[in-house]
Order: sequence, then C-alpha cells, then structure tokens
Amino acid sequence: MTTRIGIMGYGNLAKGVEASISQNPDMQLVAVFTRRDPASVKTKTPGVGVFSTDSVADFKDKIDVLIICAGSATDLPEMTPKYSKMFNCIDSFDTHANIPVHFDEVDKACKEAGTTTLISAGWDPGMFSIQRLYANCILPDGKDYTFWGKGVSQGHSDAIRRIPGVKNGKQYTIPVESALEAVRSGKGPTLTTRQKHKRECFVVAEEDADLAYIENAIKTMPNYFADYDTTVHFISEEEFFRDHAGMNHGGFVFRSGVTGFDRDNRHIIEYSLKLDSNPEFTGSVLVAYARAIHRLSEKGDIGCKTVFDIAPALMSPLSDYNMRAHLL
Amino acid sequence: MTTRIGIMGYGNLAKGVEASISQNPDMQLVAVFTRRDPASVKTKTPGVGVFSTDSVADFKDKIDVLIICAGSATDLPEMTPKYSKMFNCIDSFDTHANIPVHFDEVDKACKEAGTTTLISAGWDPGMFSIQRLYANCILPDGKDYTFWGKGVSQGHSDAIRRIPGVKNGKQYTIPVESALEAVRSGKGPTLTTRQKHKRECFVVAEEDADLAYIENAIKTMPNYFADYDTTVHFISEEEFFRDHAGMNHGGFVFRSGVTGFDRDNRHIIEYSLKLDSNPEFTGSVLVAYARAIHRLSEKGDIGCKTVFDIAPALMSPLSDYNMRAHLL
Repeated sequence: MTTRIGIMGYGNLAKGVEASISQNPDMQLVAVFTRRDPASVKTKTPGVGVFSTDSVADFKDKIDVLIICAGSATDLPEMTPKYSKMFNCIDSFDTHANIPVHFDEVDKACKEAGTTTLISAGWDPGMFSIQRLYANCILPDGKDYTFWGKGVSQGHSDAIRRIPGVKNGKQYTIPVESALEAVRSGKGPTLTTRQKHKRECFVVAEEDADLAYIENAIKTMPNYFADYDTTVHFISEEEFFRDHAGMNHGGFVFRSGVTGFDRDNRHIIEYSLKLDSNPEFTGSVLVAYARAIHRLSEKGDIGCKTVFDIAPALMSPLSDYNMRAHLL
Repeated sequence: MTTRIGIMGYGNLAKGVEASISQNPDMQLVAVFTRRDPASVKTKTPGVGVFSTDSVADFKDKIDVLIICAGSATDLPEMTPKYSKMFNCIDSFDTHANIPVHFDEVDKACKEAGTTTLISAGWDPGMFSIQRLYANCILPDGKDYTFWGKGVSQGHSDAIRRIPGVKNGKQYTIPVESALEAVRSGKGPTLTTRQKHKRECFVVAEEDADLAYIENAIKTMPNYFADYDTTVHFISEEEFFRDHAGMNHGGFVFRSGVTGFDRDNRHIIEYSLKLDSNPEFTGSVLVAYARAIHRLSEKGDIGCKTVFDIAPALMSPLSDYNMRAHLL
C-alpha cells in the first residue's frame, strides 16, 4: 500500500521528512504547502508541486497523511486541529505540559471528521517517551532519568541572541559524564539540575560590545542558565558559521529499577541516540508513523493517537511473517 | 481491572514471574502448576496453591492469563498450543529460527478456542526485538548489531559440562569492547563472530582430570567455542559456588543508519540492558505483557500475538491520560 504524503511547511523538519520519504519506497510525496509565495520555494523531490496553504482543501482526496512541520508555541495548537478536520495528520508537538490539552482539541476534530491524527511524534516526545513507558511497565519499582545532548537547544540559543551586544549565538546542552556514570552504575542517584547537564555557549559579539556584561547576563539568566554550570566562548562570525552550523543532537533515557521479593536485584535499561541531524531523524520518525496512521485510518480506527497507542508492527513496511522471521 | 495469573512450572523463570506479580497491584497470582509432586513445591506468595498440571483445566474460569515457564527445546512447542486451547497464555519461546512454525501452531489453537496468546516475550526475543523493529522503521538505510552479555550462556555451560573430566562449568559471553566502540563511533563496521564476542569459562575439574585435554576440548569445540577467543579458568568447587552462582545478563542492540538526500548524516540508536537477574527481568516482561493480553482478550482480539503487535499503552497500569501527562 502506497501512502500519499503532504507536507505542511518547508523548514528544516519538512526537509527532513522529504528526505526520509525518498528512503521509503511505499511513501509518495504529493505536495508541499507553504505560507510563503509558493513560487519562491523549490523542493528537492522532482515533480512535486508547492502550493499555498489556502489550497490544501483541494487535496482532500489526493493525500493519505498530512505531516505538519510547524512550531509548537503557536502554530501546531491551531493547525493540527484545523487540518485534522480534513486529513489524517502527524505533528511533532513538543510542549510536554500542554500535551493533554492539545490531545483533546485534536481528538475532537478527528472524531467530528472521521480522521486519525498522531501528535507528539519525534524523539522527545516520541522514541524517548516509548522507552520511558516500556521501562516503567517492566520495572515498576524504579527511577527514570532523561538526559539531553550533546546538542543545540533552540530556546537557549534564542535567549542568548536577545541579550544586547550579541550578534549571534548558539547553546549546547551537554550531559554531565559523571552523572551518566552514576546512573549506569546502578547507584540510583538523586541528581539536581546542575548535576545533570551543563551548558556551553558560543557567542559572536557586536563590535565594541561589553563582553563581561554579556557573559554575566548569560550566566545569571533565570530558568535558562542560572541553575547550570555555563561556559561562554566568544568567537568570530567566521568561526561561528564554520564550526556551529550543524544540527546534531541526542540524549539518553535510563530506568534503574529493582526486582525480586527482597527488591535486591537491580536492572539498568539505557536507550541513547546520537544524531547527526536532529530534523532528519525527527522527520524519519514522522514518516514511519505516517505509515501506521494510514493503516489505522484504513481500519476505521479514528481519533487522536500518540506513540503509546501504536503497535510497532504498524510502522514497518515488512510483512508480519518477515518481521517475525527476521527481527523477532 | 485485576488480571488473575496462573504460572505453569516453578523453576527460576516462574519464580521471577511470581516476584514481579508482587510488584504489580493489579496482578493476582491464582495458582502454580507443576509436573513434580505438588506437595514438594512451596511458593513464596502466601495462600497460593500448587497443583498438578493435570488439574489445570479446572481453572478455566479462574485464570485470565497462564504464563508458561518452560524450555523452548521441547516443552513450549507442545505446551503453548495445548494450553492456548484453554487459556490466554504467554510464553518466552526463544528458538529464533522456529518462531514462524511456533506462531502458526499457537495461532491455530487460539483461533479454535477464541483465546489470545503472546509468544516469545522476554528480552531477546522481546525487548531487543522491539528495538530492532523501531530502529529499522526509522532508519531503513542502516545496519543492525546485537551483542549479548556479559552473562551466562546456558547452552555453552551445558556443553562444557559434557566434556569428560569436567565436574562443573559455567560460560560467560562477553561483548568485545573495541567492537562496541567501533559501532558507537558510527564507522558501521563489518564484524566477524570472533570480533563481536569472547567467551570466558570457569571449570571445576574432576580429581586427576587432564586439564590440558579439557582446555583443548573446550577451545576447539565447533559452533560453541572454535570461532571465538576463549579463555578457560580452572577453579575449585568452593570458588565456583561462591563466585558463579549469579544469573546476571544483558546486552546491546544498535542500529547505525544514514539519512538525507545525500545519505550523509549518520545516526546511532543504542539500547542496552544490565540485568542482575535474567529470570527476574524476563519474568517482569512476561507480567507486563500479561496485562496487555488480558486487555486484548477482553476486546475479543484473539489469535497468536508477538511483542510487535502490542501497542505499548496496553502494557501499562496507568490511565491513558496519566501516560500522556507524565511519560510522553
């Protein structure tokens, strides 16, 4: 079964989705939708048209799953319910605290329209969430640990760039190695914010800027940096574009738990990702879930779904027999 | 919803299942069945009766899921289809090559009886298989690597004990650290059997046994040891029981894959387990799947299932809302 995909948006994540479609022969990219002038956008996939978001309704019978590549702050809360009234959709909504509200809005839209939409796909939320869930089911007496990085935090980089005198800036979140080791060793440590992650900032200052002021403004910024060991490096614009253009990321999920009548046997489950390209990996997760959502929709299983609701077999292009014979 | 569990067998795995039930308030152990004299078996759970396997049919309406704790070589191929005619069942069938045949036998029994049975639960097959499947769906262009250990291989320990002059023996499978590092680094290496694992043997020899003969017989044994770097240690019986009574195990599953139109961004997914007690961890997986199988059975979703067919949410005692609010 071929899944006909539409992509809403054409930023980094959308391009990651497009690249992933090219790796999956049963996926077909039908159209890209943009709020910009469609004539200004050129896709990498030959023969795929770019259209205004206003014309998306014309594609109602030509698209099986619409993958919405937009921001969680204001776009997705509006777009995913809206487009779920027309299409099966996938989004990567990642504001953890607002997931229950977003779920309800999308579920209502899906049930009115008879569509199936998966929210919050990607790696966190997404693959990390699945690991937390499985591990909690297997080891009910235990502790979860999630570490992010090494990778760029967009929110923290934005915060740096808003400081007067900063021309450009990038922030890396880095797990503290000794904390990872303490968890791996089975000590089940209680870790403070500062003990888990450190933050490293690369800043291009405006000419004549007060570097001491900038460094202090970063290191004392509440919520963002004050609770962490933060290092600030001032670099040239040339170095910035040469060394800090990448979109690598990653992280670790652990569960450390005990079993036995005396709760004296310890088990450590560790899952980690090392990603050269955050948007391409996230895009690949979204495409794998598009296959599952298309299948659920064909079965008439409508409503809002999360990664928790999807049996892994639904995501695979392999036959059930081949999965059992080769991957089980 | 309470799940009433029966355990078939009372060896190490069954005791692991029993301990896990004590950690899950919605699980209730109803009965243990044994081929031994029931009077000779004493369970750890107060008030739970031990019965002959012959009387299992009497429990048809008292048990929601029967967890079959028996060997894959001869017991499970016979027992799982047989008991699936009466009960929803779980087994840990782990002869990878025979899974398709076992699946068909069990599926036939389930469909005749209207029951739901999950086969091949545990960690490999089981949690490792799930990791392989998810990772293959996300990164279709890539390579899988599975490493086992450090842990005891029962089959290899048995092989040692069959050598004349050997009184007792235990074999540890150990992943080669440099191979793990090569995979982690993203080199995508091609690894021979010898490059992936080494084997370490602890042997108690009979008095006056020919140690050189034993060591050579182990190291040159085809299939079991000849293709590996194998170390043999002769130890006293006292040391054997003091230092090698544990049932720890573990392993690693990797997928190393590329994305992007130029396939030039590499991603490494790593999952690892460090288990103090192989049977208690495996038992904990079986109990989590018992919850899922009970739910599927209640929904009328009959037939043979594998871990690939089970949505993670089905395994959790949490409400859907709580899962989304706290684990997603």
